[in-house]
Amino acid sequence: MVHPRVLRALSTPLVGHLDPAFLGIMNDIQTLLRGVFQTKNRFTIAVSGTGSAGMEASMVNIVEPGDTVIVGVNGVFGTRWATIVERCGGKAIRVEAPWGQIIEPAAIEQALRQSGPVKAVAIVHAETSTGAWQPLEPIARLCREHDSLFLVDAVTSLGGAPVEVDRWGIDVCYSGTQKCLSCPPGLSPFTLSERALAAIKARRTPCQSWYLDLSLIADYWAEGKRAYHHTAPISMLYALREALRLVDEEGLPARFARHQLNSDAVTAGLIELGLQPLPPTGYRLPMLTCVTVPSSMPEAEIRRDLLSMYGIEIGGGLGPLTGKVWRIGFMGESSTEAHVLTLLNALEEICIRGGWLSTPGIALRAAARVYNRKAF
Amino acid sequence: MVHPRVLRALSTPLVGHLDPAFLGIMNDIQTLLRGVFQTKNRFTIAVSGTGSAGMEASMVNIVEPGDTVIVGVNGVFGTRWATIVERCGGKAIRVEAPWGQIIEPAAIEQALRQSGPVKAVAIVHAETSTGAWQPLEPIARLCREHDSLFLVDAVTSLGGAPVEVDRWGIDVCYSGTQKCLSCPPGLSPFTLSERALAAIKARRTPCQSWYLDLSLIADYWAEGKRAYHHTAPISMLYALREALRLVDEEGLPARFARHQLNSDAVTAGLIELGLQPLPPTGYRLPMLTCVTVPSSMPEAEIRRDLLSMYGIEIGGGLGPLTGKVWRIGFMGESSTEAHVLTLLNALEEICIRGGWLSTPGIALRAAARVYNRKAF
Repeated sequence: MVHPRVLRALSTPLVGHLDPAFLGIMNDIQTLLRGVFQTKNRFTIAVSGTGSAGMEASMVNIVEPGDTVIVGVNGVFGTRWATIVERCGGKAIRVEAPWGQIIEPAAIEQALRQSGPVKAVAIVHAETSTGAWQPLEPIARLCREHDSLFLVDAVTSLGGAPVEVDRWGIDVCYSGTQKCLSCPPGLSPFTLSERALAAIKARRTPCQSWYLDLSLIADYWAEGKRAYHHTAPISMLYALREALRLVDEEGLPARFARHQLNSDAVTAGLIELGLQPLPPTGYRLPMLTCVTVPSSMPEAEIRRDLLSMYGIEIGGGLGPLTGKVWRIGFMGESSTEAHVLTLLNALEEICIRGGWLSTPGIALRAAARVYNRKAF
Repeated sequence: MVHPRVLRALSTPLVGHLDPAFLGIMNDIQTLLRGVFQTKNRFTIAVSGTGSAGMEASMVNIVEPGDTVIVGVNGVFGTRWATIVERCGGKAIRVEAPWGQIIEPAAIEQALRQSGPVKAVAIVHAETSTGAWQPLEPIARLCREHDSLFLVDAVTSLGGAPVEVDRWGIDVCYSGTQKCLSCPPGLSPFTLSERALAAIKARRTPCQSWYLDLSLIADYWAEGKRAYHHTAPISMLYALREALRLVDEEGLPARFARHQLNSDAVTAGLIELGLQPLPPTGYRLPMLTCVTVPSSMPEAEIRRDLLSMYGIEIGGGLGPLTGKVWRIGFMGESSTEAHVLTLLNALEEICIRGGWLSTPGIALRAAARVYNRKAF
């Protein structure tokens, strides 16, 4: 869901992408993005494409043919990132973990020791395909020790859980707008440390992508330069500024606490319905709850009913998890008590009709306890 | 300018990018895009990026390392396209013409004869940096004779002048949304012939871009498949459908005639002010008028006055034309008699104040004659 203020911003009449008024909006976006990324990085911008464009930009700018990159692979997005390394002519060393588990820092350390020079280590912070919440600080330390750049996919986490770019030591970090920032999809917030900028400057070959060449895009976003590269997606940037203002007004600590509370409540309810979280305790994302669906329940049919009868869309499993899990997002504006209770109520109704539940209200009462409510 | 219906569509609440309701919108967009491209191509979609992303997609999907591509270079965009060929590991043969002139078909023919096998010939239909209107049919015929694919940049022309993909024999054609389609920037309408699809299928190496890999994106847009590739920019696609409906309601012949009439009128007026069109007669774009500014007139200062005092934005020169020309766009919703007269009136006022014009009304009267009006 998107806040009405963001929808209203989207429909603002257009100005040119080099209009002085628009350049002021770009400044605002950079300042606000530095806030959510918790960074002072001067290169902090919105890439003109969805989160996947950010993923591609992160690799094509850093990796040159022959470079070695360690990629944590425990879901769809790590898998995709490793593919992109290979399309850059790089060597991808995949450090794998079962889907739903995190990548163990010890496994990354081993890979770093066994390989020659490693240009970068790439880790997905919030695996949208499994709900796993990856700790980043230990891996950041390893990257410093081994003089590798640390690349982080924060598509699903940014704005819903801490992403402390400077304090942790992340060199390249990107996100998407349509997750916890509650802005329509179409842009990829992106930040580069000075170490990453130096690596890009030291490239021996040009970036294989012209559209995503950050050394050229930097000159459009740099205050005082604003050199034409490509036409910025004006309306989307209007929307992003407004969405970031809403994040700023709420404040990051309050926003993270809200996501965690609603996640705790929905998880408590789902467990009562026999739906067990896939990732282990302590590694479950606060904005995306991934649960295993018992084989007795027709998962695709229930998802269709949720959408057609209750207007609720939840995600099915991807890859090896197809037909086995649900991925239930409560992100940004959608992370509310009302949404949690609406979903649990709908699932209870469906489960009672289907004969998979005999005690009505059990899930709702579990959520109520988390919210410290007496009853509903 | 964007029609209010398009702004309203932008602010429609969001649904998921795999929601059945959204898939219906994608179908509508494909049908309407086939209309403006005048094609039956099944692969007719909107790429999730601006026109420059379309330009990159056109090359990275067709060119493999070692392939030869002939690129017509007579402005910024041909120059950029040749750079992209080289970033794909291809060999770019630049067929050059002075900025403001067209690429002569005979020069393309000569290059085709002198080179070994040529994978593709890439030509900009409407050079936004010079205002030159490139004839395409003769070059399309040459491409067929030499078994080369024909790639056309129709960023500025689509929806404002005929782009007859099927009848002319264009294999790869892309555009932008923010020119004559009058939709905000952020998407690139894109179409591929069966010949181009076969060439992509026969690649020996994967496309170097994952984000713009059309063989993967095809599975998202193909009816019945709709396989997840990346999250579509939902709001932008809402807007594009509405903008295309407006094009469809007006009808292409009426839309092209409107652009031509307003172009004729503004050109007549500008000539009276001593501003001569850069491209030769017969090769001047109907949506973008590029005129040489006499060195006696402070061109940057006048552009600033137009923006700050009259709310009119016109473009300056790029590359070797910096400081020498103005590029004045009347595209889509902005191609109106009122806009033409407002601009000419503002320029007359500025020129009289600056002492570059002594006969008030001269430009307005020239435009009036084109519109068949007695006087203003």
